[in-house]
Amino acid sequence: MLPSGMNLDSYRVMPGQSVQLADWNTNDDGGLGKKEGVGRLADLGERLATLQERLYAENKQALLIVLQARDAGGKDGTVKTVIGAFNPNGVRISNFKVPTEEERAHDFLWRIHAQAPRTGMVGVFNRSHYEDVLVTRVHRLIDEETARRRLEHIHAFEALLSDAGTRIVKFYLHISPEEQKGRLQARLDNPAKHWKFNVGDLEERALWPEYTSAYEAALTTSTTQAPWFVIPADRKWFRNLLVSEILVKTLEEMNPQFPQTSFDAGTIHIE
Amino acid sequence: MLPSGMNLDSYRVMPGQSVQLADWNTNDDGGLGKKEGVGRLADLGERLATLQERLYAENKQALLIVLQARDAGGKDGTVKTVIGAFNPNGVRISNFKVPTEEERAHDFLWRIHAQAPRTGMVGVFNRSHYEDVLVTRVHRLIDEETARRRLEHIHAFEALLSDAGTRIVKFYLHISPEEQKGRLQARLDNPAKHWKFNVGDLEERALWPEYTSAYEAALTTSTTQAPWFVIPADRKWFRNLLVSEILVKTLEEMNPQFPQTSFDAGTIHIE
Repeated sequence: MLPSGMNLDSYRVMPGQSVQLADWNTNDDGGLGKKEGVGRLADLGERLATLQERLYAENKQALLIVLQARDAGGKDGTVKTVIGAFNPNGVRISNFKVPTEEERAHDFLWRIHAQAPRTGMVGVFNRSHYEDVLVTRVHRLIDEETARRRLEHIHAFEALLSDAGTRIVKFYLHISPEEQKGRLQARLDNPAKHWKFNVGDLEERALWPEYTSAYEAALTTSTTQAPWFVIPADRKWFRNLLVSEILVKTLEEMNPQFPQTSFDAGTIHIE
Repeated sequence: MLPSGMNLDSYRVMPGQSVQLADWNTNDDGGLGKKEGVGRLADLGERLATLQERLYAENKQALLIVLQARDAGGKDGTVKTVIGAFNPNGVRISNFKVPTEEERAHDFLWRIHAQAPRTGMVGVFNRSHYEDVLVTRVHRLIDEETARRRLEHIHAFEALLSDAGTRIVKFYLHISPEEQKGRLQARLDNPAKHWKFNVGDLEERALWPEYTSAYEAALTTSTTQAPWFVIPADRKWFRNLLVSEILVKTLEEMNPQFPQTSFDAGTIHIE
């Protein structure tokens, strides 16, 4: 597989970096054509499956993928296409919806922690603990001090998982307001997609600048062990390609190995 | 998509039917060639994905797929190929391993129940509550009366899920002793597959007739709402094809529908 030549670090939020999302492109194509990108995606999918088999066999590390985006930002599409390349036996996807009464009766990380991936597994958070500093903050369900404390708790929580062998990669799928409008309209125009449309999404859309501020604060939790990537997501093919590239690179860095066996294969006779 | 002409009911265990596994073919090809079968599998995969999207959107029913087999029987391969056709966002796979101390401190269905799929989802049990009347019975960890009671508990438990809208389909992947030998040997011969080989598998293999009896008893739990299918599984391509055919038929019978929307799409204007 040829190197893409993409500079993956240019999409990464560095520890301590202050992010102004207005400065981050939503429509990047990495200098590639769509045809080239889609072809490369197939290769990356095979590479992901190969690396995942080693992760599963090794059974010492875990990979946690956090997906955050505005409505219609492409979380589900990313799961379908990128995560779909993995062997489903080694993947667990957690969809975090509005907390139940039981969940609300605990600290905000209680339900999250219960879904942390075990060794050998790829865990995917489709929405995550970051909702607790996004939607709640925008709607003023928590005050600014609580939001600040929560970001500290998230930092500590992710360090806990990291110390136990879980690599965390966090993606913010970054779309423009125009792209969101087009995607929401497409849902309205297609009866088979009506079920994906919520009237409430329009209220959230009206809070675009407030969400921008909340995301910019959330992105400050980028660390070496649990980095945030801002993924230009107006082009679905480029979003899928870039997320796949970053996951391949991450798994290569984790470098999982087939375990040593405790038997001598040559001496075993199967009756 | 052309009908396959396969009589799926010929692989189904009828309620009350007594099964002698020796009478069930392990090497069937359904009268198809491999090339034809593999081509057809791709069509079925698309059909599965389409039906699953409706199940997810409807959010009223669930599908629970139970996979049981002897070692190297093809559970993982079935998950990878057949379940891999679904959108991973709507699938949850539960691998039941040796129970933990906490799990053993509860009734045998406690950990199983916790993994039951919610509405809209496809749940896959890779091994299941049936292990509690298989491995435990063969190794005489439970007596015959306990095994008989457990089968009754399983029957009641599956009826509970069924009444709540969960369709259950149970597959026994049926391989011959010769096929198992070949597959275990292949794991020994390939260093990249050593991690899949357990010396303990040979001890289980030596108990082949005891497992046959235990499976035959487990298959008596076949009901209209939670049927068992005995899948000829010596040929991987045919196993994948037949399981896919049965899942398509099951989902078609469930007939999930996109939900009615509570809005009039024509009147909504996106700012």
